[in-house]
Amino acid sequence: MGRVTERRRVLRIRDGEVSARPDTLVAEEPLEIRLNGKPLAITMRTPGDDFALAAGFLVSEGVLATAADLQNIVYCAGATGDGGANTYNVVDVRTAPDVTLPDFRLERNVYTSSSCGLCGKAGLDAVRTTTRWPIADTPPLRVTPELLAGLPDRLRTAQRVFDRTGGLHAAALFGEDGELLDTREDVGRHNAVDKLVGRALQHGGLPLSRTILMVSGRASFELAQKAVMAGIPVLAAVSAPSSLAVDLAAETGLTLVGFLRGSSMNVYAGEDRIVLGETETAPQG
Amino acid sequence: MGRVTERRRVLRIRDGEVSARPDTLVAEEPLEIRLNGKPLAITMRTPGDDFALAAGFLVSEGVLATAADLQNIVYCAGATGDGGANTYNVVDVRTAPDVTLPDFRLERNVYTSSSCGLCGKAGLDAVRTTTRWPIADTPPLRVTPELLAGLPDRLRTAQRVFDRTGGLHAAALFGEDGELLDTREDVGRHNAVDKLVGRALQHGGLPLSRTILMVSGRASFELAQKAVMAGIPVLAAVSAPSSLAVDLAAETGLTLVGFLRGSSMNVYAGEDRIVLGETETAPQG
Repeated sequence: MGRVTERRRVLRIRDGEVSARPDTLVAEEPLEIRLNGKPLAITMRTPGDDFALAAGFLVSEGVLATAADLQNIVYCAGATGDGGANTYNVVDVRTAPDVTLPDFRLERNVYTSSSCGLCGKAGLDAVRTTTRWPIADTPPLRVTPELLAGLPDRLRTAQRVFDRTGGLHAAALFGEDGELLDTREDVGRHNAVDKLVGRALQHGGLPLSRTILMVSGRASFELAQKAVMAGIPVLAAVSAPSSLAVDLAAETGLTLVGFLRGSSMNVYAGEDRIVLGETETAPQG
Repeated sequence: MGRVTERRRVLRIRDGEVSARPDTLVAEEPLEIRLNGKPLAITMRTPGDDFALAAGFLVSEGVLATAADLQNIVYCAGATGDGGANTYNVVDVRTAPDVTLPDFRLERNVYTSSSCGLCGKAGLDAVRTTTRWPIADTPPLRVTPELLAGLPDRLRTAQRVFDRTGGLHAAALFGEDGELLDTREDVGRHNAVDKLVGRALQHGGLPLSRTILMVSGRASFELAQKAVMAGIPVLAAVSAPSSLAVDLAAETGLTLVGFLRGSSMNVYAGEDRIVLGETETAPQG
Protein backbone atom coordinates (compact mmCIF):
# COMPACT_ATOMS: atom_id res chain seq x y z
CA MET A 1 0.00 0.00 0.00
CA GLY A 2 1.04 3.59 -0.03
CA ARG A 3 1.97 3.11 -3.67
CA VAL A 4 0.40 6.35 -4.82
CA THR A 5 3.59 7.26 -6.68
CA GLU A 6 6.53 5.32 -8.04
CA ARG A 7 10.01 6.37 -9.12
CA ARG A 8 11.38 5.66 -12.59
CA ARG A 9 14.46 6.80 -14.49
CA VAL A 10 13.61 9.25 -17.26
CA LEU A 11 15.59 10.85 -20.08
CA ARG A 12 14.77 14.52 -19.97
CA ILE A 13 15.18 16.58 -23.16
CA ARG A 14 15.02 20.38 -22.84
CA ASP A 15 15.90 22.51 -25.88
CA GLY A 16 18.30 19.86 -27.14
CA GLU A 17 19.91 19.22 -23.76
CA VAL A 18 19.63 15.66 -22.55
CA SER A 19 19.87 14.50 -18.97
CA ALA A 20 18.92 11.32 -17.14
CA ARG A 21 17.24 11.68 -13.80
CA PRO A 22 14.71 9.96 -11.56
CA ASP A 23 11.10 11.01 -12.01
CA THR A 24 8.01 10.53 -9.88
CA LEU A 25 5.11 8.83 -11.63
CA VAL A 26 1.58 8.27 -10.51
CA ALA A 27 1.00 4.61 -9.72
CA GLU A 28 -1.61 2.78 -11.80
CA GLU A 29 -2.72 -0.77 -11.06
CA PRO A 30 -5.86 -2.77 -11.75
CA LEU A 31 -8.38 -3.42 -8.99
CA GLU A 32 -10.83 -6.27 -9.33
CA ILE A 33 -13.98 -5.73 -7.30
CA ARG A 34 -15.82 -8.87 -6.22
CA LEU A 35 -19.29 -8.84 -4.74
CA ASN A 36 -19.96 -11.67 -2.29
CA GLY A 37 -17.18 -13.64 -3.93
CA LYS A 38 -18.21 -13.05 -7.55
CA PRO A 39 -16.05 -10.88 -9.86
CA LEU A 40 -18.02 -7.80 -10.81
CA ALA A 41 -15.71 -5.19 -12.32
CA ILE A 42 -12.11 -4.25 -12.94
CA THR A 43 -10.91 -0.69 -12.81
CA MET A 44 -7.45 0.77 -13.42
CA ARG A 45 -6.80 2.84 -10.34
CA THR A 46 -4.18 4.49 -8.17
CA PRO A 47 -3.67 2.17 -5.18
CA GLY A 48 -4.91 3.39 -1.81
CA ASP A 49 -8.38 3.74 -0.33
CA ASP A 50 -9.30 0.54 -2.16
CA PHE A 51 -12.07 -0.40 0.25
CA ALA A 52 -13.58 3.06 -0.12
CA LEU A 53 -13.29 2.76 -3.90
CA ALA A 54 -15.10 -0.58 -3.88
CA ALA A 55 -17.79 0.70 -1.50
CA GLY A 56 -18.33 3.88 -3.52
CA PHE A 57 -18.53 1.92 -6.74
CA LEU A 58 -21.27 -0.19 -5.22
CA VAL A 59 -23.15 2.93 -4.09
CA SER A 60 -23.06 4.11 -7.72
CA GLU A 61 -24.43 0.75 -8.80
CA GLY A 62 -27.28 0.88 -6.32
CA VAL A 63 -26.04 -2.03 -4.17
CA LEU A 64 -25.02 -0.14 -1.02
CA ALA A 65 -26.69 2.85 0.64
CA THR A 66 -25.79 2.68 4.33
CA ALA A 67 -22.84 1.49 6.39
CA ALA A 68 -25.09 -1.30 7.68
CA ASP A 69 -25.48 -2.68 4.13
CA LEU A 70 -21.79 -3.49 4.21
CA GLN A 71 -20.71 -6.58 6.15
CA ASN A 72 -17.02 -6.26 5.39
CA ILE A 73 -14.42 -5.75 2.66
CA VAL A 74 -11.21 -7.79 2.42
CA TYR A 75 -8.24 -8.17 0.11
CA CYS A 76 -8.47 -11.64 -1.42
CA ALA A 77 -5.73 -13.79 0.05
CA GLY A 78 -5.45 -15.97 -3.05
CA ALA A 79 -4.73 -13.09 -5.41
CA THR A 80 -0.97 -13.41 -5.56
CA GLY A 81 1.51 -12.10 -8.08
CA ASP A 82 5.23 -12.61 -8.70
CA GLY A 83 6.73 -14.61 -5.85
CA GLY A 84 3.36 -15.43 -4.29
CA ALA A 85 2.91 -12.08 -2.53
CA ASN A 86 -0.58 -10.67 -2.26
CA THR A 87 -1.13 -8.17 -5.07
CA TYR A 88 -3.63 -6.18 -3.02
CA ASN A 89 -5.40 -5.80 -6.37
CA VAL A 90 -8.49 -7.90 -5.65
CA VAL A 91 -11.08 -6.94 -3.04
CA ASP A 92 -14.21 -8.80 -2.03
CA VAL A 93 -17.20 -6.88 -0.71
CA ARG A 94 -19.60 -8.83 1.49
CA THR A 95 -23.04 -7.34 1.85
CA ALA A 96 -25.32 -7.72 4.86
CA PRO A 97 -27.77 -10.64 4.54
CA ASP A 98 -30.78 -8.41 3.94
CA VAL A 99 -29.26 -6.46 1.03
CA THR A 100 -31.08 -7.08 -2.22
CA LEU A 101 -28.69 -7.38 -5.13
CA PRO A 102 -29.82 -5.80 -8.38
CA ASP A 103 -29.92 -7.76 -11.60
CA PHE A 104 -26.41 -7.56 -12.98
CA ARG A 105 -27.39 -9.62 -16.02
CA LEU A 106 -25.23 -12.47 -14.89
CA GLU A 107 -26.00 -14.41 -18.04
CA ARG A 108 -24.03 -11.94 -20.11
CA ASN A 109 -20.31 -11.65 -20.48
CA VAL A 110 -20.44 -7.91 -20.13
CA TYR A 111 -20.88 -6.11 -16.88
CA THR A 112 -23.59 -3.51 -17.01
CA SER A 113 -26.07 -2.35 -14.47
CA SER A 114 -29.59 -1.32 -15.33
CA SER A 115 -28.50 2.28 -15.59
CA CYS A 116 -26.10 1.93 -18.47
CA GLY A 117 -28.11 4.26 -20.64
CA LEU A 118 -28.00 2.15 -23.78
CA CYS A 119 -31.55 3.01 -24.71
CA GLY A 120 -31.68 6.78 -24.55
CA LYS A 121 -34.20 8.28 -22.16
CA ALA A 122 -34.97 4.90 -20.57
CA GLY A 123 -31.41 4.79 -19.27
CA LEU A 124 -31.72 8.26 -17.77
CA ASP A 125 -35.02 7.27 -16.18
CA ALA A 126 -33.34 4.25 -14.65
CA VAL A 127 -30.78 6.39 -12.81
CA ARG A 128 -33.49 8.73 -11.56
CA THR A 129 -35.65 5.91 -10.23
CA THR A 130 -32.78 3.80 -8.87
CA THR A 131 -31.27 6.36 -6.54
CA ARG A 132 -32.38 6.09 -2.91
CA TRP A 133 -32.21 9.86 -2.52
CA PRO A 134 -33.91 11.67 -5.39
CA ILE A 135 -32.27 15.08 -5.66
CA ALA A 136 -35.59 16.78 -6.31
CA ASP A 137 -36.82 15.60 -2.89
CA THR A 138 -33.89 16.94 -0.85
CA PRO A 139 -34.13 20.17 1.17
CA PRO A 140 -33.13 23.11 -0.99
CA LEU A 141 -29.44 23.94 -1.19
CA ARG A 142 -28.49 27.19 -2.88
CA VAL A 143 -25.05 28.48 -3.78
CA THR A 144 -23.76 31.76 -5.13
CA PRO A 145 -21.53 32.04 -8.21
CA GLU A 146 -18.91 33.60 -5.92
CA LEU A 147 -18.82 30.51 -3.72
CA LEU A 148 -18.48 28.23 -6.75
CA ALA A 149 -15.74 30.43 -8.20
CA GLY A 150 -13.64 29.87 -5.10
CA LEU A 151 -13.71 26.06 -5.28
CA PRO A 152 -11.11 25.35 -8.02
CA ASP A 153 -8.34 27.09 -6.08
CA ARG A 154 -9.19 25.14 -2.95
CA LEU A 155 -9.17 21.91 -4.93
CA ARG A 156 -5.77 22.69 -6.47
CA THR A 157 -4.28 23.56 -3.09
CA ALA A 158 -5.36 20.15 -1.83
CA GLN A 159 -3.98 18.31 -4.89
CA ARG A 160 -0.64 17.37 -3.49
CA VAL A 161 0.27 14.42 -5.71
CA PHE A 162 -0.65 16.22 -8.89
CA ASP A 163 2.08 18.74 -8.15
CA ARG A 164 4.65 15.98 -8.24
CA THR A 165 3.38 13.85 -11.13
CA GLY A 166 1.01 15.88 -13.29
CA GLY A 167 -0.82 12.61 -13.79
CA LEU A 168 -3.76 12.58 -11.46
CA HIS A 169 -7.37 13.61 -11.56
CA ALA A 170 -8.87 15.10 -8.42
CA ALA A 171 -12.33 15.17 -6.94
CA ALA A 172 -13.46 17.02 -3.84
CA LEU A 173 -16.54 17.38 -1.70
CA PHE A 174 -17.37 20.84 -0.41
CA GLY A 175 -19.98 21.86 2.12
CA GLU A 176 -22.63 24.39 1.16
CA ASP A 177 -20.49 27.11 2.80
CA GLY A 178 -17.55 26.21 0.52
CA GLU A 179 -15.61 24.32 3.19
CA LEU A 180 -13.48 21.48 1.80
CA LEU A 181 -14.82 18.27 3.35
CA ASP A 182 -12.74 15.61 1.60
CA THR A 183 -10.63 15.18 -1.53
CA ARG A 184 -9.23 12.20 -3.43
CA GLU A 185 -6.83 11.84 -6.36
CA ASP A 186 -6.61 8.98 -8.83
CA VAL A 187 -5.55 8.18 -12.40
CA GLY A 188 -9.29 7.72 -13.04
CA ARG A 189 -11.66 10.57 -12.26
CA HIS A 190 -14.48 8.08 -11.62
CA ASN A 191 -12.28 6.30 -9.05
CA ALA A 192 -11.61 9.55 -7.21
CA VAL A 193 -15.37 10.11 -6.95
CA ASP A 194 -16.00 6.51 -5.88
CA LYS A 195 -13.40 6.92 -3.12
CA LEU A 196 -15.13 10.07 -1.83
CA VAL A 197 -18.55 8.43 -1.87
CA GLY A 198 -17.24 5.19 -0.36
CA ARG A 199 -15.64 7.05 2.56
CA ALA A 200 -18.88 8.86 3.16
CA LEU A 201 -20.72 5.53 3.22
CA GLN A 202 -18.21 4.04 5.66
CA HIS A 203 -18.65 7.00 7.99
CA GLY A 204 -22.43 7.06 7.80
CA GLY A 205 -22.41 10.22 5.69
CA LEU A 206 -24.82 9.25 2.90
CA PRO A 207 -26.74 10.85 1.33
CA LEU A 208 -24.40 13.73 0.54
CA SER A 209 -27.34 16.04 0.09
CA ARG A 210 -25.67 19.12 1.59
CA THR A 211 -22.52 18.97 -0.54
CA ILE A 212 -21.03 20.11 -3.83
CA LEU A 213 -18.92 17.66 -5.84
CA MET A 214 -16.08 19.26 -7.78
CA VAL A 215 -13.95 17.40 -10.37
CA SER A 216 -10.72 18.52 -11.99
CA GLY A 217 -11.54 17.80 -15.61
CA ARG A 218 -14.63 17.14 -17.65
CA ALA A 219 -18.07 15.98 -16.50
CA SER A 220 -19.07 12.72 -18.16
CA PHE A 221 -22.32 10.79 -17.87
CA GLU A 222 -20.63 8.43 -15.45
CA LEU A 223 -19.68 11.22 -13.02
CA ALA A 224 -23.16 12.73 -13.15
CA GLN A 225 -24.58 9.27 -12.44
CA LYS A 226 -22.32 8.85 -9.41
CA ALA A 227 -23.40 12.24 -8.05
CA VAL A 228 -27.07 11.36 -8.45
CA MET A 229 -26.66 7.94 -6.84
CA ALA A 230 -24.97 9.50 -3.78
CA GLY A 231 -27.64 12.20 -3.45
CA ILE A 232 -25.22 15.02 -4.32
CA PRO A 233 -27.23 18.01 -5.63
CA VAL A 234 -24.44 20.02 -7.33
CA LEU A 235 -21.67 18.79 -9.66
CA ALA A 236 -19.07 21.33 -10.79
CA ALA A 237 -16.32 20.64 -13.32
CA VAL A 238 -13.32 22.64 -14.50
CA SER A 239 -13.95 21.61 -18.11
CA ALA A 240 -16.82 20.69 -20.41
CA PRO A 241 -19.70 18.33 -19.71
CA SER A 242 -20.88 15.82 -22.29
CA SER A 243 -24.35 15.90 -23.81
CA LEU A 244 -25.42 12.81 -21.86
CA ALA A 245 -24.22 14.26 -18.56
CA VAL A 246 -26.39 17.34 -19.20
CA ASP A 247 -29.36 15.18 -20.16
CA LEU A 248 -29.03 13.12 -16.99
CA ALA A 249 -28.71 16.27 -14.86
CA ALA A 250 -31.85 17.74 -16.44
CA GLU A 251 -33.73 14.46 -15.90
CA THR A 252 -32.78 14.08 -12.24
CA GLY A 253 -32.64 17.70 -11.05
CA LEU A 254 -28.85 17.73 -10.59
CA THR A 255 -27.24 21.16 -10.86
CA LEU A 256 -24.43 20.81 -13.40
CA VAL A 257 -21.78 23.54 -13.68
CA GLY A 258 -19.00 23.39 -16.27
CA PHE A 259 -15.99 25.49 -17.31
CA LEU A 260 -15.67 26.73 -13.74
CA ARG A 261 -12.65 29.00 -14.11
CA GLY A 262 -11.94 32.27 -12.36
CA SER A 263 -15.24 34.09 -11.96
CA SER A 264 -16.71 32.38 -15.04
CA MET A 265 -18.88 29.31 -15.30
CA ASN A 266 -21.62 27.73 -17.37
CA VAL A 267 -24.72 26.28 -15.73
CA TYR A 268 -26.09 23.43 -17.84
CA ALA A 269 -28.92 22.19 -15.63
CA GLY A 270 -30.55 22.78 -12.26
CA GLU A 271 -30.01 26.54 -12.30
CA ASP A 272 -32.59 27.01 -9.54
CA ARG A 273 -29.85 26.20 -7.02
CA ILE A 274 -27.68 29.06 -8.24
CA VAL A 275 -28.33 32.38 -6.48
CA LEU A 276 -28.40 34.97 -9.25
CA GLY A 277 -28.81 38.76 -9.21
CA GLU A 278 -32.15 40.49 -9.68
CA THR A 279 -31.85 40.71 -13.46
CA GLU A 280 -31.28 37.91 -15.93
CA THR A 281 -28.90 40.08 -17.92
CA ALA A 282 -26.79 42.55 -16.00
CA PRO A 283 -26.70 46.15 -17.18
CA GLN A 284 -23.74 47.41 -19.16
CA GLY A 285 -20.97 49.33 -17.39
CA MET B 1 -25.06 9.44 -36.95
CA GLY B 2 -23.11 12.63 -37.30
CA ARG B 3 -23.93 13.26 -33.67
CA VAL B 4 -20.43 14.36 -32.74
CA THR B 5 -21.80 17.48 -31.09
CA GLU B 6 -25.17 18.50 -29.69
CA ARG B 7 -26.68 21.87 -28.80
CA ARG B 8 -28.00 22.68 -25.34
CA ARG B 9 -29.14 25.87 -23.66
CA VAL B 10 -26.68 27.11 -21.06
CA LEU B 11 -26.70 29.85 -18.44
CA ARG B 12 -23.42 31.68 -18.78
CA ILE B 13 -22.04 33.60 -15.80
CA ARG B 14 -19.12 35.95 -16.39
CA ASP B 15 -18.02 38.27 -13.57
CA GLY B 16 -21.54 38.39 -12.20
CA GLU B 17 -23.22 38.92 -15.56
CA VAL B 18 -25.73 36.24 -16.48
CA SER B 19 -26.88 35.38 -19.98
CA ALA B 20 -28.68 32.43 -21.52
CA ARG B 21 -27.39 31.14 -24.83
CA PRO B 22 -27.05 27.94 -26.82
CA ASP B 23 -23.84 25.97 -26.31
CA THR B 24 -22.21 23.20 -28.30
CA LEU B 25 -21.48 20.04 -26.32
CA VAL B 26 -19.58 16.94 -27.28
CA ALA B 27 -21.95 14.03 -27.74
CA GLU B 28 -21.50 11.04 -25.43
CA GLU B 29 -23.43 7.81 -25.84
CA PRO B 30 -22.80 4.20 -24.88
CA LEU B 31 -21.70 1.68 -27.49
CA GLU B 32 -22.18 -2.02 -26.83
CA ILE B 33 -19.75 -4.15 -28.81
CA ARG B 34 -20.90 -7.68 -29.57
CA LEU B 35 -18.62 -10.36 -30.94
CA ASN B 36 -20.38 -12.93 -33.11
CA GLY B 37 -23.64 -12.04 -31.43
CA LYS B 38 -22.38 -12.11 -27.83
CA PRO B 39 -22.11 -8.90 -25.77
CA LEU B 40 -18.45 -8.25 -25.01
CA ALA B 41 -18.01 -4.70 -23.80
CA ILE B 42 -19.68 -1.35 -23.37
CA THR B 43 -17.83 1.91 -23.82
CA MET B 44 -19.04 5.48 -23.45
CA ARG B 45 -18.04 7.13 -26.70
CA THR B 46 -18.65 9.98 -29.09
CA PRO B 47 -20.83 8.59 -31.90
CA GLY B 48 -19.21 8.23 -35.30
CA ASP B 49 -16.68 5.74 -36.69
CA ASP B 50 -18.38 3.10 -34.58
CA PHE B 51 -17.33 0.22 -36.81
CA ALA B 52 -13.73 1.42 -36.67
CA LEU B 53 -14.01 1.71 -32.90
CA ALA B 54 -15.29 -1.85 -32.60
CA ALA B 55 -12.64 -3.18 -34.96
CA GLY B 56 -9.83 -1.33 -33.19
CA PHE B 57 -11.05 -2.51 -29.81
CA LEU B 58 -10.84 -6.09 -31.07
CA VAL B 59 -7.31 -5.49 -32.37
CA SER B 60 -6.37 -4.36 -28.86
CA GLU B 61 -7.92 -7.51 -27.46
CA GLY B 62 -6.00 -9.75 -29.86
CA VAL B 63 -9.07 -10.93 -31.81
CA LEU B 64 -8.45 -9.15 -35.14
CA ALA B 65 -5.17 -8.56 -36.96
CA THR B 66 -6.04 -8.27 -40.67
CA ALA B 67 -8.98 -7.03 -42.71
CA ALA B 68 -9.60 -10.66 -43.70
CA ASP B 69 -10.23 -11.58 -40.05
CA LEU B 70 -13.30 -9.37 -40.18
CA GLN B 71 -16.38 -10.76 -41.90
CA ASN B 72 -18.59 -7.74 -41.28
CA ILE B 73 -19.84 -5.27 -38.71
CA VAL B 74 -23.48 -4.21 -38.42
CA TYR B 75 -25.64 -2.08 -36.17
CA CYS B 76 -28.02 -4.43 -34.37
CA ALA B 77 -31.50 -3.93 -35.76
CA GLY B 78 -33.19 -4.93 -32.51
CA ALA B 79 -31.44 -2.30 -30.41
CA THR B 80 -34.18 0.30 -30.36
CA GLY B 81 -34.77 3.21 -28.05
CA ASP B 82 -37.60 5.68 -27.53
CA GLY B 83 -40.23 5.24 -30.23
CA GLY B 84 -38.64 2.09 -31.61
CA ALA B 85 -35.92 3.83 -33.61
CA ASN B 86 -32.54 2.14 -33.90
CA THR B 87 -30.22 3.62 -31.27
CA TYR B 88 -27.13 2.93 -33.38
CA ASN B 89 -25.56 2.13 -30.03
CA VAL B 90 -25.08 -1.62 -30.46
CA VAL B 91 -22.74 -3.13 -33.06
CA ASP B 92 -22.08 -6.77 -33.81
CA VAL B 93 -18.69 -7.82 -35.18
CA ARG B 94 -18.64 -11.08 -37.13
CA THR B 95 -15.24 -12.68 -37.48
CA ALA B 96 -14.12 -14.87 -40.38
CA PRO B 97 -14.66 -18.60 -39.72
CA ASP B 98 -10.95 -19.30 -39.21
CA VAL B 99 -10.41 -16.67 -36.54
CA THR B 100 -9.55 -18.19 -33.18
CA LEU B 101 -11.25 -16.38 -30.35
CA PRO B 102 -9.20 -15.91 -27.18
CA ASP B 103 -10.47 -17.02 -23.82
CA PHE B 104 -12.60 -14.17 -22.57
CA ARG B 105 -13.37 -16.05 -19.34
CA LEU B 106 -16.99 -16.42 -20.30
CA GLU B 107 -17.80 -18.01 -17.00
CA ARG B 108 -17.19 -14.74 -15.21
CA ASN B 109 -19.45 -11.79 -14.95
CA VAL B 110 -16.59 -9.41 -15.58
CA TYR B 111 -15.07 -8.76 -18.93
CA THR B 112 -11.33 -9.07 -18.92
CA SER B 113 -8.92 -10.34 -21.52
CA SER B 114 -5.80 -12.26 -20.60
CA SER B 115 -3.79 -9.06 -20.64
CA CYS B 116 -5.56 -7.26 -17.84
CA GLY B 117 -2.41 -7.04 -15.79
CA LEU B 118 -3.94 -8.12 -12.50
CA CYS B 119 -0.89 -10.13 -11.58
CA GLY B 120 1.99 -7.72 -12.03
CA LYS B 121 4.70 -8.80 -14.43
CA ALA B 122 2.64 -11.72 -15.72
CA GLY B 123 0.13 -9.23 -17.11
CA LEU B 124 2.86 -7.27 -18.88
CA ASP B 125 4.28 -10.51 -20.29
CA ALA B 126 0.84 -11.37 -21.63
CA VAL B 127 0.67 -8.21 -23.72
CA ARG B 128 4.18 -8.76 -25.05
CA THR B 129 3.48 -12.34 -26.08
CA THR B 130 -0.07 -11.71 -27.36
CA THR B 131 0.74 -9.06 -29.95
CA ARG B 132 1.15 -10.34 -33.51
CA TRP B 133 3.84 -7.78 -34.20
CA PRO B 134 6.41 -7.59 -31.40
CA ILE B 135 7.84 -4.10 -31.48
CA ALA B 136 11.36 -5.41 -30.83
CA ASP B 137 11.17 -7.36 -34.12
CA THR B 138 10.12 -4.45 -36.35
CA PRO B 139 12.62 -2.65 -38.62
CA PRO B 140 14.22 0.21 -36.71
CA LEU B 141 12.39 3.52 -36.71
CA ARG B 142 14.24 6.52 -35.31
CA VAL B 143 12.95 10.01 -34.64
CA THR B 144 14.57 13.24 -33.59
CA PRO B 145 13.40 15.33 -30.63
CA GLU B 146 12.75 18.14 -33.12
CA LEU B 147 10.32 15.99 -35.08
CA LEU B 148 8.50 14.96 -31.88
CA ALA B 149 8.38 18.59 -30.71
CA GLY B 150 6.44 19.53 -33.84
CA LEU B 151 3.66 16.98 -33.35
CA PRO B 152 1.48 18.65 -30.65
CA ASP B 153 0.88 21.72 -32.82
CA ARG B 154 -0.13 19.54 -35.75
CA LEU B 155 -2.48 17.59 -33.53
CA ARG B 156 -4.11 20.73 -32.16
CA THR B 157 -4.57 22.16 -35.64
CA ALA B 158 -6.43 19.01 -36.59
CA GLN B 159 -8.61 19.05 -33.44
CA ARG B 160 -11.60 20.79 -34.87
CA VAL B 161 -14.31 19.70 -32.48
CA PHE B 162 -12.25 20.46 -29.40
CA ASP B 163 -12.18 24.09 -30.42
CA ARG B 164 -15.95 24.18 -30.23
CA THR B 165 -16.61 22.06 -27.16
CA GLY B 166 -13.44 21.81 -25.08
CA GLY B 167 -14.63 18.33 -24.23
CA LEU B 168 -12.77 15.92 -26.47
CA HIS B 169 -9.62 13.91 -26.32
CA ALA B 170 -7.62 13.56 -29.51
CA ALA B 171 -5.30 10.91 -30.88
CA ALA B 172 -3.30 11.05 -34.08
CA LEU B 173 -1.05 8.82 -36.13
CA PHE B 174 2.03 10.41 -37.66
CA GLY B 175 4.45 8.96 -40.19
CA GLU B 176 8.12 8.72 -39.33
CA ASP B 177 8.66 11.98 -41.25
CA GLY B 178 6.12 13.75 -39.01
CA GLU B 179 3.32 13.74 -41.58
CA LEU B 180 -0.16 13.57 -40.05
CA LEU B 181 -1.73 10.33 -41.30
CA ASP B 182 -5.02 10.24 -39.39
CA THR B 183 -6.63 11.77 -36.33
CA ARG B 184 -9.72 10.99 -34.23
CA GLU B 185 -11.48 12.75 -31.38
CA ASP B 186 -13.67 11.21 -28.70
CA VAL B 187 -14.86 11.74 -25.13
CA GLY B 188 -12.66 8.71 -24.33
CA ARG B 189 -8.99 8.78 -25.24
CA HIS B 190 -8.99 4.98 -25.59
CA ASN B 191 -11.87 5.23 -28.07
CA ALA B 192 -9.96 7.74 -30.20
CA VAL B 193 -7.04 5.29 -30.37
CA ASP B 194 -9.35 2.35 -31.14
CA LYS B 195 -10.87 4.34 -34.00
CA LEU B 196 -7.43 5.05 -35.48
CA VAL B 197 -6.36 1.41 -35.20
CA GLY B 198 -9.69 0.12 -36.50
CA ARG B 199 -9.50 2.32 -39.58
CA ALA B 200 -5.99 1.06 -40.22
CA LEU B 201 -7.25 -2.51 -39.96
CA GLN B 202 -10.13 -1.82 -42.35
CA HIS B 203 -7.71 -0.37 -44.90
CA GLY B 204 -5.14 -3.14 -44.58
CA GLY B 205 -2.74 -0.86 -42.74
CA LEU B 206 -1.74 -3.08 -39.80
CA PRO B 207 0.79 -3.34 -38.30
CA LEU B 208 1.38 0.38 -37.81
CA SER B 209 5.09 -0.24 -37.43
CA ARG B 210 6.22 2.94 -39.23
CA THR B 211 4.08 5.33 -37.20
CA ILE B 212 4.05 7.46 -34.08
CA LEU B 213 0.89 7.57 -31.95
CA MET B 214 0.26 10.89 -30.23
CA VAL B 215 -2.43 11.45 -27.58
CA SER B 216 -3.70 14.71 -26.19
CA GLY B 217 -3.58 13.93 -22.49
CA ARG B 218 -1.95 11.35 -20.30
CA ALA B 219 -0.55 7.93 -21.22
CA SER B 220 -2.23 5.15 -19.27
CA PHE B 221 -1.50 1.42 -19.30
CA GLU B 222 -4.50 0.91 -21.59
CA LEU B 223 -3.14 3.29 -24.25
CA ALA B 224 0.31 1.71 -24.13
CA GLN B 225 -1.33 -1.70 -24.52
CA LYS B 226 -3.26 -0.53 -27.58
CA ALA B 227 -0.07 0.81 -29.18
CA VAL B 228 1.73 -2.47 -28.57
CA MET B 229 -1.15 -4.57 -29.93
CA ALA B 230 -1.21 -2.51 -33.16
CA GLY B 231 2.56 -2.73 -33.61
CA ILE B 232 3.07 1.00 -33.05
CA PRO B 233 6.67 1.59 -31.88
CA VAL B 234 6.38 5.13 -30.47
CA LEU B 235 3.71 6.57 -28.12
CA ALA B 236 3.91 10.28 -27.30
CA ALA B 237 1.65 12.07 -24.83
CA VAL B 238 1.18 15.72 -23.91
CA SER B 239 0.95 14.85 -20.22
CA ALA B 240 2.27 12.29 -17.74
CA PRO B 241 2.40 8.52 -18.16
CA SER B 242 1.42 6.17 -15.35
CA SER B 243 3.85 3.77 -13.72
CA LEU B 244 2.20 0.76 -15.38
CA ALA B 245 2.37 2.37 -18.84
CA VAL B 246 6.11 2.85 -18.35
CA ASP B 247 6.53 -0.73 -17.12
CA LEU B 248 4.66 -2.09 -20.13
CA ALA B 249 6.71 0.05 -22.52
CA ALA B 250 9.95 -1.17 -20.95
CA GLU B 251 8.76 -4.78 -21.15
CA THR B 252 7.71 -4.62 -24.81
CA GLY B 253 10.26 -2.21 -26.30
CA LEU B 254 7.74 0.59 -26.86
CA THR B 255 9.21 4.08 -26.93
CA LEU B 256 7.17 6.15 -24.47
CA VAL B 257 7.46 9.95 -24.50
CA GLY B 258 5.58 12.12 -22.00
CA PHE B 259 5.19 15.83 -21.24
CA LEU B 260 5.75 16.62 -24.91
CA ARG B 261 5.44 20.41 -24.80
CA GLY B 262 7.35 22.97 -26.84
CA SER B 263 10.88 21.68 -27.28
CA SER B 264 10.70 19.72 -24.02
CA MET B 265 9.86 16.07 -23.44
CA ASN B 266 10.60 13.15 -21.15
CA VAL B 267 11.53 9.75 -22.57
CA TYR B 268 10.39 7.00 -20.19
CA ALA B 269 11.29 3.89 -22.20
CA GLY B 270 12.69 2.79 -25.56
CA GLU B 271 15.11 5.70 -25.81
CA ASP B 272 17.09 3.86 -28.53
CA ARG B 273 14.56 5.18 -31.07
CA ILE B 274 15.28 8.79 -30.15
CA VAL B 275 18.12 10.35 -32.14
CA LEU B 276 20.18 12.22 -29.59
CA GLY B 277 23.27 14.42 -29.94
CA GLU B 278 26.79 13.04 -29.53
CA THR B 279 26.89 13.60 -25.78
CA GLU B 280 24.50 12.33 -23.18
CA THR B 281 24.65 15.65 -21.38
CA ALA B 282 24.99 18.73 -23.50
CA PRO B 283 27.62 21.35 -22.54
CA GLN B 284 26.58 24.50 -20.75
CA GLY B 285 26.06 27.71 -22.76
